[in-house]
Amino acid sequence: MTLLMPEELEAALRDIGAKRYHRLHPFHGLLHGGQLTKGQVQAWALNRYYYQAMIPVKDASLIARCEDSDIRREWRSRLVDHDGVEPGDGGIARWLKLTDGLGLDRDYVMSLNGLLPGTRFAVEAYVRFVREKSLLEAIASSLTELFSPVIISERVSGMLAGYDFVTKETLAYFDKRPPQARRDSGFALDYVKRNAQTPGEQQAVLRALEFKCSVLWAMLDALHHAYISPKHIPPGAFVPRD
Amino acid sequence: MTLLMPEELEAALRDIGAKRYHRLHPFHGLLHGGQLTKGQVQAWALNRYYYQAMIPVKDASLIARCEDSDIRREWRSRLVDHDGVEPGDGGIARWLKLTDGLGLDRDYVMSLNGLLPGTRFAVEAYVRFVREKSLLEAIASSLTELFSPVIISERVSGMLAGYDFVTKETLAYFDKRPPQARRDSGFALDYVKRNAQTPGEQQAVLRALEFKCSVLWAMLDALHHAYISPKHIPPGAFVPRD
Repeated sequence: MTLLMPEELEAALRDIGAKRYHRLHPFHGLLHGGQLTKGQVQAWALNRYYYQAMIPVKDASLIARCEDSDIRREWRSRLVDHDGVEPGDGGIARWLKLTDGLGLDRDYVMSLNGLLPGTRFAVEAYVRFVREKSLLEAIASSLTELFSPVIISERVSGMLAGYDFVTKETLAYFDKRPPQARRDSGFALDYVKRNAQTPGEQQAVLRALEFKCSVLWAMLDALHHAYISPKHIPPGAFVPRD
Repeated sequence: MTLLMPEELEAALRDIGAKRYHRLHPFHGLLHGGQLTKGQVQAWALNRYYYQAMIPVKDASLIARCEDSDIRREWRSRLVDHDGVEPGDGGIARWLKLTDGLGLDRDYVMSLNGLLPGTRFAVEAYVRFVREKSLLEAIASSLTELFSPVIISERVSGMLAGYDFVTKETLAYFDKRPPQARRDSGFALDYVKRNAQTPGEQQAVLRALEFKCSVLWAMLDALHHAYISPKHIPPGAFVPRD
């Protein structure tokens, strides 16, 4: 292992995104290409809700172990983004507007009763990673946000064009995310470039981003296996009507 | 919720097994029916290795939180079963004889580098469950062993008949397991029947067994999605040669 220059580390991180980010997963091609039934889009939104709902828990876990007031203050903006400043505000509430718009019962979505076990295990693995690994690795695992503005723009345009049951209001969640993701990933990228100062730390940063890519990928694998023909819906999980 | 008689609780547990145990998963039909390639059987053995390897960690976590010497002593036999009394002995070593016999490199198997993320997340969820839930739930989550003697006998006879690359020696792991599983599940079943004394505790026991069934099911979902045609092998995971 050799010590990378900060720009080389950034290039290696971006290369992981180019190869492993879930934009490359076949499920996203189907979702963005208008090739899913309403029930399949519901399954995606319902499962992804758990990820959205756990993001502030993940971020609070990071803040809770951070002894630097500047970083804590910076990271706090993520709590505001997802939990909002009042009931009905924030990313989780906007995700529930998406599941509402898709015709899912809100109590059922929030109960998590229809969740795929594969989704649950992947999301929990992410929360645990942030709680238990080094602060540097926890921050690095957020770096998938470097790649999210592109996938979000593809998703919004593709879903609006492809599904008559999707409206601009339903997708309001995604309007807010690109500038937030750019701000947050800029901070995190700068942090890891400055603080990964040994070859071992740099490798840990790279592995953390690979780990996070595998979380997002495994969530789509679980969805794809359960809901794309031939369907293999596991016992107890959401069964679409169509 | 009503309080069940101990026999009713046992019947409800057995009913969960009849509906959710991974014997019902289509991957097992393919595996036991001789319908897989050697590479697909390798993928199964390689992924299942991680489960085997983490079982004593799970069992030690349970012992570590148990204040009753009788239960700790009883549960200790599981450590002996899996870790053996000397190097080369015990269930993990026998599982590595299986992966050896299938032509997998032992260092590669033990490195976990080829593991499916879905396997990793499911196994970790099980270890975490045993570490963090109540002792009653932790013990209840072991009750899938009630159902394992049947699946093991199907597996051994089916694999010996179906694959010319599988020998009786390769499958030696499974020779030992049925009597161990009967002894262990007998103890655990007796424990939960005696100690789940409120409707809430009984429901927690039932949910714990459902959770464990979902762990085993999700492991096979991940394998099935990755390795059964049309294959969707996630980035970085084991790629069979055939």
